[in-house]
Amino acid sequence: MKEMPSIENLIEAFARLPGVGRRSAERMAYKILEMDEKDVSFFAESLSKAKSDIDICPVCGMYREGGHCAIDEDDSRNRKQIMVVSAYRDALAIENSNTYHGLYHVLGGTLSPSKGVNPEDLRIDSLVDRIRSGGIEEVIIGTNPTMDGETTSLYVAKILEPLGVQVTRLAYGLAIGSSLEYSDPLTLGKALEGRKKL
Amino acid sequence: MKEMPSIENLIEAFARLPGVGRRSAERMAYKILEMDEKDVSFFAESLSKAKSDIDICPVCGMYREGGHCAIDEDDSRNRKQIMVVSAYRDALAIENSNTYHGLYHVLGGTLSPSKGVNPEDLRIDSLVDRIRSGGIEEVIIGTNPTMDGETTSLYVAKILEPLGVQVTRLAYGLAIGSSLEYSDPLTLGKALEGRKKL
Repeated sequence: MKEMPSIENLIEAFARLPGVGRRSAERMAYKILEMDEKDVSFFAESLSKAKSDIDICPVCGMYREGGHCAIDEDDSRNRKQIMVVSAYRDALAIENSNTYHGLYHVLGGTLSPSKGVNPEDLRIDSLVDRIRSGGIEEVIIGTNPTMDGETTSLYVAKILEPLGVQVTRLAYGLAIGSSLEYSDPLTLGKALEGRKKL
Repeated sequence: MKEMPSIENLIEAFARLPGVGRRSAERMAYKILEMDEKDVSFFAESLSKAKSDIDICPVCGMYREGGHCAIDEDDSRNRKQIMVVSAYRDALAIENSNTYHGLYHVLGGTLSPSKGVNPEDLRIDSLVDRIRSGGIEEVIIGTNPTMDGETTSLYVAKILEPLGVQVTRLAYGLAIGSSLEYSDPLTLGKALEGRKKL
């Protein structure tokens, strides 16, 4: 006996999600059969609605709902600072830290020659345009502290150099709550290098 | 900045799935935004279609699509045997073993007084009806080898006793490919108890 076609399609759809293998997808699909009809409708509608109502802001590259960018249209934000991040969710993490109130620019990826991601694949031209149009005093680079993130950071800094804007980078060091014993040597080296006077 | 309402709904829907926490649900929801529109439509339609086209067979308790039970309507199956399982997916596992060709009866759960699951919550009456209507020679009990599965097995056997049908239970013992060293004492005890002459 094979899986029923309707359930097989559903399993296939679930298995396309990140971190979901065949077995988990099966459990999810059968869970759907047990759920109330209204909960399944809610799920199906949420999928369609998220896809139809959310797009990428052509200015900053953040996701926006109904054509309104929550950041760019917020007049209370500091319009002299732009933080450059690889992905929307990185900006969301910064937002949740409640320590930054400037604008963002989402590159939509990280430079990675080995994976075939080149400068023209990222939203770098639109960053340059934003800075050229004036008003920006500082660009804070917030790419991930990884090899590719670092490459991206250096590349963006180089491109911005002739534009006369201050370019900074988020600090490296010990994560709060971490332990020296389990910190990796590179992090410890960066923490030492960036030490501050007490 | 809060999550956009459309994405928040989607995260909530994903978080209702088994084994999906808030963080995984977020990753899944953002993955949807990156997916092609047609893939998202396929997902949404699969959800609605599985829910609308699949129901529970009133005879055997298995899921069926379009009102047709793949087991009950298959004339090549042995109609003298019924295997009693707790859930549809248990029957599916047996089917995949390709060793059983009789009918099934899904109880829709396992007796568990502590969780408030009583005999009237399971499809036991309909099992009795099937046997009373004749033709069944053997009922194989295939509930899980757990405390609740065992309770269910004994209860069902007792109910079926006056009906004059042979009642058997799947064997306990060492799982193929397992090692004695790591087998639990109860399994080893059952394997010894059920030893066979070579």
